[in-house]
Amino acid sequence: MLETYEAEVMIREAMGQVATERVALERAAGRVLRQTIRAERDQPPYDRVTMDGVALRASLERHFDIAGIQRAGMAAEQLPAGAVCLEAMTGAMLPIGADMVVPIERLRRRDGGVTLEDGYTPEPGQFIHRKGVDCRAGDTLLTSGVRLNAPALAILAGNGFADVEVAQIQRIAIFSTGDELVPVGGPVREWQIRRSNEHAIAGALSARGFGSSDISWVADDLDATVQALSEALVSHDVLILSGGVSMGTYDHVPAAMQRLGVTKIFHRIAQRPGGPMWFGIGPKGQRVFGLPGNPVSALCCCVRYVVPALLEAQGLKRAERFTVILAAEAMLLPALTRFLPVTLRQTGAGHIAAAPAPIPTSGDYNHLGTADGFVELPPGAGHAPVGTPVVFHGW
Amino acid sequence: MLETYEAEVMIREAMGQVATERVALERAAGRVLRQTIRAERDQPPYDRVTMDGVALRASLERHFDIAGIQRAGMAAEQLPAGAVCLEAMTGAMLPIGADMVVPIERLRRRDGGVTLEDGYTPEPGQFIHRKGVDCRAGDTLLTSGVRLNAPALAILAGNGFADVEVAQIQRIAIFSTGDELVPVGGPVREWQIRRSNEHAIAGALSARGFGSSDISWVADDLDATVQALSEALVSHDVLILSGGVSMGTYDHVPAAMQRLGVTKIFHRIAQRPGGPMWFGIGPKGQRVFGLPGNPVSALCCCVRYVVPALLEAQGLKRAERFTVILAAEAMLLPALTRFLPVTLRQTGAGHIAAAPAPIPTSGDYNHLGTADGFVELPPGAGHAPVGTPVVFHGW
Repeated sequence: MLETYEAEVMIREAMGQVATERVALERAAGRVLRQTIRAERDQPPYDRVTMDGVALRASLERHFDIAGIQRAGMAAEQLPAGAVCLEAMTGAMLPIGADMVVPIERLRRRDGGVTLEDGYTPEPGQFIHRKGVDCRAGDTLLTSGVRLNAPALAILAGNGFADVEVAQIQRIAIFSTGDELVPVGGPVREWQIRRSNEHAIAGALSARGFGSSDISWVADDLDATVQALSEALVSHDVLILSGGVSMGTYDHVPAAMQRLGVTKIFHRIAQRPGGPMWFGIGPKGQRVFGLPGNPVSALCCCVRYVVPALLEAQGLKRAERFTVILAAEAMLLPALTRFLPVTLRQTGAGHIAAAPAPIPTSGDYNHLGTADGFVELPPGAGHAPVGTPVVFHGW
Repeated sequence: MLETYEAEVMIREAMGQVATERVALERAAGRVLRQTIRAERDQPPYDRVTMDGVALRASLERHFDIAGIQRAGMAAEQLPAGAVCLEAMTGAMLPIGADMVVPIERLRRRDGGVTLEDGYTPEPGQFIHRKGVDCRAGDTLLTSGVRLNAPALAILAGNGFADVEVAQIQRIAIFSTGDELVPVGGPVREWQIRRSNEHAIAGALSARGFGSSDISWVADDLDATVQALSEALVSHDVLILSGGVSMGTYDHVPAAMQRLGVTKIFHRIAQRPGGPMWFGIGPKGQRVFGLPGNPVSALCCCVRYVVPALLEAQGLKRAERFTVILAAEAMLLPALTRFLPVTLRQTGAGHIAAAPAPIPTSGDYNHLGTADGFVELPPGAGHAPVGTPVVFHGW
């Protein structure tokens, strides 16, 4: 059986990169950038006034007549000669001939002019944000592979990018399989279970910016499974199935995949939960993830493998792994990586501790609401002691 | 001037709680839950088979005829008397009369029946997930104030919640003000600046699940400001303005607010950047945030005050503050809280260190793409040393 990192590498090598598309800035929030963003011009683009006050030239004078006004959004005015100033607003160009700005707070208005506060000596150059000190036209501001967060959107806007090249979002179909599954609404018999995996998987994806996915269900029947997946393979780039990947008589997913020409890359990973995970590639390069049907297994595999693979295929630079420390000892599993649901808390001084969440049985998704995610415990004997650094995966 | 925490408290007291609405489960991802979710029935709802194999009753026999099949999604079959078993699938009901499950891996098929692996002794009760061990009907599974993440969606689905009560999303209008501002597309003169704040603010909100906000611009003109804001106050719950809140002649926001009957709660906070921040409440309870026009100031104030206030108004239980440690000494400001952009990195063993981002000047948003967010340094003299725990706010 594969180790978790081996499965991860095999998925990564099979994923490739999605194509790009150009979207309007207003629709770009959260998308993965796929171009280099360079400064449109120097920033600031002019010597910029940074306080409301008056612009003047250095001198021994302490009283200045107001010769006019330098508003923001207007070309630079000429400061006349003599003991005069121009009123100047934050964001305005520095008037031609001025070399400092004195803020309102340091001035008294008198005789139609302004007088410097007693004892106050302005410094030449003060309250001027000089042209080009932040960046020069052509400087690289953002590189391919960043997620467009608030500052990135400000940079795009400020540099004239009304539209931008981003990674396409994969068309994703989510299937749950299993005769025991019934819809969320409506009646449920004692031996039936409501369908929940597709909602959890769709939620995990939408939280990472994948929009809404198509969700559906297929019975434990090989022909029905082949039919449904064959249609989904036409219209989607990625299929995420849950259930039907174990060794039972009615686990039709591997057989259906074979009939559909989906090449198996691997089946089974040395981990618990989620051991029966299946991964393959369709005839047109579609990626097919077969997750176990147990809700905790399905969600752990989705967060551990599917989400990172989809984001990497969009070109997102790989996030540094988030490490936390165990707040309680945790049992290791011989020859299996263990995914253990945990609740995080701060221990002070920048430490984050992970306490195993109080979940009665490993398959119990009803108590996962108390967990922030899970940690990954390497295979081993005995227990990992309190304080062990472990990799954390958040829901 | 107010301290940051005083401003925070004044905003919180003024925010109140938004109304609730019922949405379909498919549209509930990321929303804030506003009801208690209790278990629909025991979980598991029946004694559940947890491995593919055969169900049988404890005995000294080692070979069992297969008397039939117990599929998932069907009522419990009766296990006949004698040395017989039923094939049983993961997820199925335990057949009546059976008290253990033997997995396929431990069986050899022979003579139309199955024989236990040599040396293998199954334990009574094994591979059965007993009715009600995870939870009992009526148990509380989720409480009001959680954000509906993947496990929460699984819980809703599994417990029959085809729709769910969540907090309404505030109708938010974002305005930038300033004569120097021009659209992102189109020409820009030397003395003009492209509008960026509204894109950054809208991005910060959409990343937190607020959907898309209405964005617009208003000139530095009192009448135009009053006109535009008066319309926005009719159709929105929250106005977020940037610019026009300083002390300049053309900073019309406070005067416009007075004319519109928006009551000032505070103006100015002892912080840098973002000192001139304004907050008030409109005649119909609309919340109005007046952020400074400088892009770094506007974004810091949005992340530090606006986003948490909007989420708290939705009923989101307040996130524990995220503390990191300084990776380099940082200058403190006398009598002012300092917001310092930083890049986070892991130092191992669950520590997160915040290194000041290399940003040429405090107003330079073009380099914020290198920062993960900012830390909050309390007012003081001198420098905070390496290793100081500080509160972090992510973009």
